[in-house]
Amino acid sequence: MNDCVFCLIVAGAAPATMVYSDDAVCAFLDIRPITRGHTLIVPKVHATELDDLDPDLGARVFRTGHRLARALRRSGLASDGANLILNDGTAAFQTVGHVHLHVVPRKHGDKLTFAKGFLLRRPHEPNSTAAAIRAGLTALDQSEAEGAQG
Amino acid sequence: MNDCVFCLIVAGAAPATMVYSDDAVCAFLDIRPITRGHTLIVPKVHATELDDLDPDLGARVFRTGHRLARALRRSGLASDGANLILNDGTAAFQTVGHVHLHVVPRKHGDKLTFAKGFLLRRPHEPNSTAAAIRAGLTALDQSEAEGAQG
Repeated sequence: MNDCVFCLIVAGAAPATMVYSDDAVCAFLDIRPITRGHTLIVPKVHATELDDLDPDLGARVFRTGHRLARALRRSGLASDGANLILNDGTAAFQTVGHVHLHVVPRKHGDKLTFAKGFLLRRPHEPNSTAAAIRAGLTALDQSEAEGAQG
Repeated sequence: MNDCVFCLIVAGAAPATMVYSDDAVCAFLDIRPITRGHTLIVPKVHATELDDLDPDLGARVFRTGHRLARALRRSGLASDGANLILNDGTAAFQTVGHVHLHVVPRKHGDKLTFAKGFLLRRPHEPNSTAAAIRAGLTALDQSEAEGAQG
């Protein structure tokens, strides 16, 4: 065990509001969200920067980001889009030394809300937010299952 | 053939300074770069937003972004990191309706250059920039081949 806060979250030794977890990655709410539903996706195995990250594991992180962006559109947050951002290296504003992909849900006409959120980064109500995102992932699963049958 | 500018670039019917191409994706210089080496990665099959993009093809786009970020560190551009950004949807500042991943090389201490580049987005010398990036990709290939032998 190291003292990386994201490794502690992965190990269940630090608190986080989890929205998704599998064998390779997990996703939890940013504690300083730019918009409601701002989520971070991390590999469960520690990697400080992209240069240290196994490409297959990286692909799992990004696949989850793609999936989460689609789920947010189907969630109670009713997003119209998202910014997916990975800041690689301290030179690129990376603040936690464990690779993480931001997924920031967006709505039409939210530019001022986004700008305010970017400056203030105040938490929203995490439990209902996480529940909405999980419901969006379930809705995506269901629509894909129906598509596969149809 | 549609009138999507990125589809035209993929088809070779519109100009672009290409740095990488394979069966699924290609990468070319942003004509309005934030920093020198700012590259866009696109799927060769048209998808307007992430919601329209096949997950496997999405993974190819992101894998290429991961690889490019690593190559830039090994290139003559000598980046210390990069911002990987995918703006999904017009609500999220997506300006061209064909999925594209930005890879913006960064250096330590470049915050003012970055801010200026973000505002001005002036082109750099594209041919030498692309040559440097391609050399970085070759250097990454070589280091991996040596690693596999070692």
